[in-house]
Amino acid sequence: MNVTTEQLFDDARTQNGFLPDPVSDETLRRIYDLMKWGPTSANCSPARFVFVRSPEAKAKLAPCMSAGNRAKTLQAPVTAIIGMDMAFYEKLPQLFPHDQTARSWFEGKPAVIEATAMRNSSLQGAYFMLAARALGVDCGPMSGFDSTMVDAAFWAGTTVQTNFICNLGQGDPAKLFPRSPRLTFEEACAVL
Amino acid sequence: MNVTTEQLFDDARTQNGFLPDPVSDETLRRIYDLMKWGPTSANCSPARFVFVRSPEAKAKLAPCMSAGNRAKTLQAPVTAIIGMDMAFYEKLPQLFPHDQTARSWFEGKPAVIEATAMRNSSLQGAYFMLAARALGVDCGPMSGFDSTMVDAAFWAGTTVQTNFICNLGQGDPAKLFPRSPRLTFEEACAVL
Repeated sequence: MNVTTEQLFDDARTQNGFLPDPVSDETLRRIYDLMKWGPTSANCSPARFVFVRSPEAKAKLAPCMSAGNRAKTLQAPVTAIIGMDMAFYEKLPQLFPHDQTARSWFEGKPAVIEATAMRNSSLQGAYFMLAARALGVDCGPMSGFDSTMVDAAFWAGTTVQTNFICNLGQGDPAKLFPRSPRLTFEEACAVL
Repeated sequence: MNVTTEQLFDDARTQNGFLPDPVSDETLRRIYDLMKWGPTSANCSPARFVFVRSPEAKAKLAPCMSAGNRAKTLQAPVTAIIGMDMAFYEKLPQLFPHDQTARSWFEGKPAVIEATAMRNSSLQGAYFMLAARALGVDCGPMSGFDSTMVDAAFWAGTTVQTNFICNLGQGDPAKLFPRSPRLTFEEACAVL
């Protein structure tokens, strides 16, 4: 499918308000079926997604959000909770079939598990947002929420913890903030 | 610029060998000038990049890599070290100009600093790899290295720590591994 780098990067903006257009189940599946191909270490694929759309689920999520993020989260057609499965290594026999010892690289090593889950579920969260943008869905990622409350409300009884949360829909251009500056190549990079 | 989702996701593969075609400084700048627009929390932009290309710099990096990653790292035209600046919040007055109190959200809070640096530099690492693919540059991301050694060799005297490392160039199709399976939508996602 054709997309442009402007759509993915230069012209894409974090959205703070959304138009009423819905995001279909079919679109959510298409986003997942693109982003799932992005690379993770040992193909560990720790990201898990809950798509919050019904009024009941939104009502559970709203009190977990920081005050500044609550109204836009209630307004967005869908809010994605991007989680990380802290027992991701249990799936390595399935996901990394050519080395059946891969699970032992993680089992019983909490610091390695934590770094791997956070690094790779964040990579996958970025693939997710760029896949959404590729399909014409705008994103509003947020870190302002009570993660203990979100974990209890949406991942109880699982080994998943919340990484970040992202509103999805058609952005309302009237709600955009002015774009903030970025570091120059010289500030962020060196060539040796 | 036109790209395809196949080029970014479906058909893109982690490369384990590289053809001799070089990656120019101009291409490295173009990758950065795309990926820098990807969203980070409070625009904190903690990722820093060292592009290792000269024989001298490659010789410094090779002993830091795990045995299985050494030969392909020496062979790749460029190897990017993706780091995270643990003092990223010092740049918030510049990067988040509309709230000059943003630095105080992080200063003296090591757990928040660590999670924010890791989450956001990983998001930026993913933007980086998809920007490279958009410009026709193949990626070979790796977590198998001694991070204490890489930090000492490339970030000494700075507040930057290594997150992950990524070979860049034109992939050698002969060195590809068979593609590993991904979780289905039902295994990774729920719609509420």
